[in-house]
Amino acid sequence: MSNFKIVLVETSHPGNIGAVARAMKNMALTELRLVSPKLFPHADATARASGADDVLRDAKVYDTLAAAIADCQVVLGTSARDRTISWPVLTARQCAERWVGAADANIALVFGRESSGLANHELDLCHFLLRIPCNPDYSSLNLAAAVQVVCYELFVASGQKHPSGIGDVGEEPLASSEQMEGFYQHLLQTMADIGFLQPGGSVSIMRRLRRLFNRAQLDTKELDILRGILRFSQNHNLK
Amino acid sequence: MSNFKIVLVETSHPGNIGAVARAMKNMALTELRLVSPKLFPHADATARASGADDVLRDAKVYDTLAAAIADCQVVLGTSARDRTISWPVLTARQCAERWVGAADANIALVFGRESSGLANHELDLCHFLLRIPCNPDYSSLNLAAAVQVVCYELFVASGQKHPSGIGDVGEEPLASSEQMEGFYQHLLQTMADIGFLQPGGSVSIMRRLRRLFNRAQLDTKELDILRGILRFSQNHNLK
Repeated sequence: MSNFKIVLVETSHPGNIGAVARAMKNMALTELRLVSPKLFPHADATARASGADDVLRDAKVYDTLAAAIADCQVVLGTSARDRTISWPVLTARQCAERWVGAADANIALVFGRESSGLANHELDLCHFLLRIPCNPDYSSLNLAAAVQVVCYELFVASGQKHPSGIGDVGEEPLASSEQMEGFYQHLLQTMADIGFLQPGGSVSIMRRLRRLFNRAQLDTKELDILRGILRFSQNHNLK
Repeated sequence: MSNFKIVLVETSHPGNIGAVARAMKNMALTELRLVSPKLFPHADATARASGADDVLRDAKVYDTLAAAIADCQVVLGTSARDRTISWPVLTARQCAERWVGAADANIALVFGRESSGLANHELDLCHFLLRIPCNPDYSSLNLAAAVQVVCYELFVASGQKHPSGIGDVGEEPLASSEQMEGFYQHLLQTMADIGFLQPGGSVSIMRRLRRLFNRAQLDTKELDILRGILRFSQNHNLK
């Protein structure tokens, strides 16, 4: 289970961070990453963590979500809101069935702010939306409760010894988030160079392209091919 | 789901009662029964209930567990501890699979004290032990977290409005095979035009690219964007 990372973005209430640590340890997860928590460390976090103070103590703090997921090959973002551009959605159970046992990938499970969830620019970094089935008339779970359900599904799946799904994609290792960001920068620059986009680009076109390539989960060989094509497109007129 | 009753025995912290109400309503359960709560009603309960104050307001208070489950045909007691006399045990999922939809039975799900769980004389009233799979080295879930997981399993089993899986990619229609073949021809031609491939191309690179884009299941809008990029790459040197 050590390949799963729980990432909390700008959590307001330190008590929730402690409750998340406890929920994680109950389900044998240990790696907690915090992006700009409002108050941390804090006595409320320690109190709610109960016996999971080791998870809390080892939690790492980051300035940005991008930094927190840099070494992750798969990034799932939780979101209760409907979005205008729909991301591919996995339920907590589908996520567990797909990736538990995939020892060759780091998987980030990203939970947004208590009040407002994840911003669109944060969802742009995610490959999938992670959804917890719940009452459509009252769908806002407490942060730690949401983490509890997701970690529980991972734990249950870990006891069922699924063969890993991730090996189906390709024989090459999956690209990391950092590598994908490098690709997106290159893609944006190329689109500007060839005149397809104005410099600065269209946010909505870039978002659609991110969604497409995140969904496909590129391996490193595919990434090399695509970057080769971009390079030749850019240099095409220099010959 | 109205045949399921959540029963809390001698809860110490009113905040936990509120968090349980929220967890229940998130999963479309409404009937909360309290056996001798230490402090209820209480401001902490109301605060943690968030928008589930209706569940809290309708909660009924009883003096004994026997009274709280008098109208129930099936009684399941949660217990983390191993008992000398072993009860028949069901996991939360087995419980859900067995009784969700059993409209002719009232089913009580009984949760004990935060510190010490259920006493043996209370377990005597239970037909089954209800177990939540968890880390054997740290098995004490927060009360509301335990209720959350159990109610979640009930909700999933009830089959209410699961978000559909990965096929649900976008609002645009998916590209047809014919459209995809047109795209692959265009991609091949472009790679040749920009000098990335020799005319005729590399079979293995094209196969990798097909696998990538087939896997992503492009919608028609995404296809339009990609073909736009190819067109601008081709014409880049003509300006």
